[in-house]
Amino acid sequence: MALATPTPSSADIGVTGMGVMGKNLARNLARHGHKVAIHNRTASRTEAVVAEHGEEGTFIPAGSMDDFVASLSSPRVAIIMVQAGAATDAVIEELASRMDEGDIIVDCGNALFSDTRRREAALRERGLHFVGCGVSGGEEGALLGPSIMPGGSVESYKRLGPMLESISAHVDGEPCCTHVGADGAGHFVKMVHNGIEYADMQVIGEAYDLLRRALGLTPAEIADIFAEWNEGDLDSYLMEVSVEVLRRVDARSGKPLVDVIVDAAGQKGTGAWTTQTALTLGVPVTGIGEATFARGLSSSPVQREGAREFAAEAADWDVQDRDAFIEDVRQALYASKLVAYSQGFNLIQAAAAEYGWDISLGDMARIWRAGCIIRARFLGEVTRAYEANADLPLLIGDSYFHHKVVAALPSWRRVVSLSALHGVPAPVFSSSLSYYDGVRSDRLPAALIQGQRDYFGAHTYKRVDSEGSFHVLWATEDRKEVEA
Amino acid sequence: MALATPTPSSADIGVTGMGVMGKNLARNLARHGHKVAIHNRTASRTEAVVAEHGEEGTFIPAGSMDDFVASLSSPRVAIIMVQAGAATDAVIEELASRMDEGDIIVDCGNALFSDTRRREAALRERGLHFVGCGVSGGEEGALLGPSIMPGGSVESYKRLGPMLESISAHVDGEPCCTHVGADGAGHFVKMVHNGIEYADMQVIGEAYDLLRRALGLTPAEIADIFAEWNEGDLDSYLMEVSVEVLRRVDARSGKPLVDVIVDAAGQKGTGAWTTQTALTLGVPVTGIGEATFARGLSSSPVQREGAREFAAEAADWDVQDRDAFIEDVRQALYASKLVAYSQGFNLIQAAAAEYGWDISLGDMARIWRAGCIIRARFLGEVTRAYEANADLPLLIGDSYFHHKVVAALPSWRRVVSLSALHGVPAPVFSSSLSYYDGVRSDRLPAALIQGQRDYFGAHTYKRVDSEGSFHVLWATEDRKEVEA
Repeated sequence: MALATPTPSSADIGVTGMGVMGKNLARNLARHGHKVAIHNRTASRTEAVVAEHGEEGTFIPAGSMDDFVASLSSPRVAIIMVQAGAATDAVIEELASRMDEGDIIVDCGNALFSDTRRREAALRERGLHFVGCGVSGGEEGALLGPSIMPGGSVESYKRLGPMLESISAHVDGEPCCTHVGADGAGHFVKMVHNGIEYADMQVIGEAYDLLRRALGLTPAEIADIFAEWNEGDLDSYLMEVSVEVLRRVDARSGKPLVDVIVDAAGQKGTGAWTTQTALTLGVPVTGIGEATFARGLSSSPVQREGAREFAAEAADWDVQDRDAFIEDVRQALYASKLVAYSQGFNLIQAAAAEYGWDISLGDMARIWRAGCIIRARFLGEVTRAYEANADLPLLIGDSYFHHKVVAALPSWRRVVSLSALHGVPAPVFSSSLSYYDGVRSDRLPAALIQGQRDYFGAHTYKRVDSEGSFHVLWATEDRKEVEA
Repeated sequence: MALATPTPSSADIGVTGMGVMGKNLARNLARHGHKVAIHNRTASRTEAVVAEHGEEGTFIPAGSMDDFVASLSSPRVAIIMVQAGAATDAVIEELASRMDEGDIIVDCGNALFSDTRRREAALRERGLHFVGCGVSGGEEGALLGPSIMPGGSVESYKRLGPMLESISAHVDGEPCCTHVGADGAGHFVKMVHNGIEYADMQVIGEAYDLLRRALGLTPAEIADIFAEWNEGDLDSYLMEVSVEVLRRVDARSGKPLVDVIVDAAGQKGTGAWTTQTALTLGVPVTGIGEATFARGLSSSPVQREGAREFAAEAADWDVQDRDAFIEDVRQALYASKLVAYSQGFNLIQAAAAEYGWDISLGDMARIWRAGCIIRARFLGEVTRAYEANADLPLLIGDSYFHHKVVAALPSWRRVVSLSALHGVPAPVFSSSLSYYDGVRSDRLPAALIQGQRDYFGAHTYKRVDSEGSFHVLWATEDRKEVEA
């Protein structure tokens, strides 16, 4: 059965791509009273949405791209929810060639921000708005209220924003959606969100691993501890998820599910993107980097097999005061998490400067408070910190958070110290502590590195006591210093 | 004065780009009896080479690209030594359009391997050989004998190889030059060489910083310790350089030079490239990554200023046995360095598999023994290790190196532990230890991460006890496990 031609200009917004994410976004829009045109390359999926969810609101199904675009009221707003890459480019072209000046194409997929910048520039040339829009929260979030991070022009947000805000998650009546910044800013912030998610998950993993190896606790016992932590500073969705996973008993074996799962972490690439981008911009995001590498290490069967005969655990870990140790681990987790967020926000600051985006970091923390994977209670304080000082050089330098870190320091140092002595890997705990101690150091051995570079590569160095660049003529007899 | 037209087909090889690297490569070739055509966009530089160094061998100066190409005997070999990027592409085109089938263009600049792959494929289409060739050793190496890493076709190496081998550094009569592998393999290996160099420099920096902060030693005293270390396992050019830099007294202030140098490390990007590539290939190169981020951190004035008010050093460091502590630091340095090399070689293995390169890791270590920045005595053992087992999963798993690491472990653990307690950042020492403890772990918390991913994103997991992918229907009442 072919779909009937819809009434022209009858839809408020359209969604093309009826995979589960696109379908749920469309349903969410319909449930909020928006008339939603829907389209899919294979019309059967479009029909199925109407058949199964038609009563949830007004769907305007379109059997062709011509009908889909014609059904949108002007200025048209069409959301794309298809595979990133070539598929997205193809659909953009199909839409753009049928659209008029001022119309808006919204890519809600997980595109790399540089692709979004390229697409936005190309469509702007043609008089169209292109909005790269990060959506976090998975399938359930898309249906019930995600965190939404739209980039693109301010003008496009005037038309698009109210609809997106209506379907986003809300906290205290505030939508978890705001205009992030121009062109690729939305996808950039979504990428950093995902990178932080990698670090967040890894620090929970390190805490779990330490409690298990040091205290011999069962996953269920650790779940109870995490549930308690989830009442305080660490209150977050990922903590809640961890409790659920650790409590789960595998029906087939009767063992804890976590012991049945192969310990090789997969990745979709956003942790790597974040780290790669940070390397290009020169921003140290060691927490995200180590978390991404830890996943890679876990998924290196040849290397892990090659290390099977390595010495086992360094030494038995005889913890005297279990409660004190548990509190130490909690503090190490919290401090490491704060460092990862601090670094992630620095990355957004660096990108904003590089690409000319006007991004409110306080707003970013605000729209992450619900709907998305890293939603957490402490993000309210992050918003407060950046509202107090929009140019805060370090989140962990804000007085509230700095007090938290200082309070955590003795515990954090003990945990990193003991994990090194006892042979339990804690790459993000230790790397975050190194970062903290590095950034607060009056003098770093980077001075020696500059000396080395000048010696072997004549790369020159700067002096603490005068302007200009200098070079020692190392290869000559008298080794004079010259101005370079 | 215009340069005279050279005799056609009179040169064995040509070099275009008479910057200091190109000039020195040309002089090195001439000194080894090769007739070298030389060319530069501005002819005055070409004339200057002949005027200043004409007596060193046979230079055939060319005033135009036409003359330059005509002066080369067939099959022609032309080395490009110009800026990476657009300049290289432009010169390649100038050469290629004047060349005949079977001629060879050699890029000795620091190109990204993926650019080299693109160029090689394009020139192969046109019947030309394109060789991306890594050259390490700086200006001095280029003149006196660098380490040379040529990629490209086996056929091109037959013509080019003997000339490059003649001008390379030599160890025990063996040239530090070999055919690395097809297309971009040479530039890839050079990139990893540079990445390892970042880690190598950083671990020396961390050792210096620890000795200074824990023992209160002066740079000159640390130079003496490093000089002693340089007699053993750590014997290397970078150690030698560090001794020289640390011994140096600044003439102007009378202070140690290292205290006068601004402690903000620069970078040319190859550490970032290596880490970014490793992230794409999923290979954990934590040592190189942390070393690169440490440079970024040192060059983050806003963040460092923002942390000025953070608490100072955690606690005074009262080292009881100075000699034992110095030996601990030496062992930590050596073990961390071995991990960085082990990771770097894993990266080359992964790239070889990805791009179909047949790379002998033993040969790579062999051609790094002299001429290049990371030249070191222990590379002989690395060659031995990979000759004993070309598919060694981990360099630190080779029995010789594993014994070294096991011997170092107690020291290494103490140093990482104490640096965490006392607030001295040692990011590569600690990250390398985390890697060691991670790769040898029977079970990693990656299992929990897979559980989290399945919970919030339906990413599925694998079971240790059966094939296939599984998913728990977390959102349903009975939370059944289903095969995905």
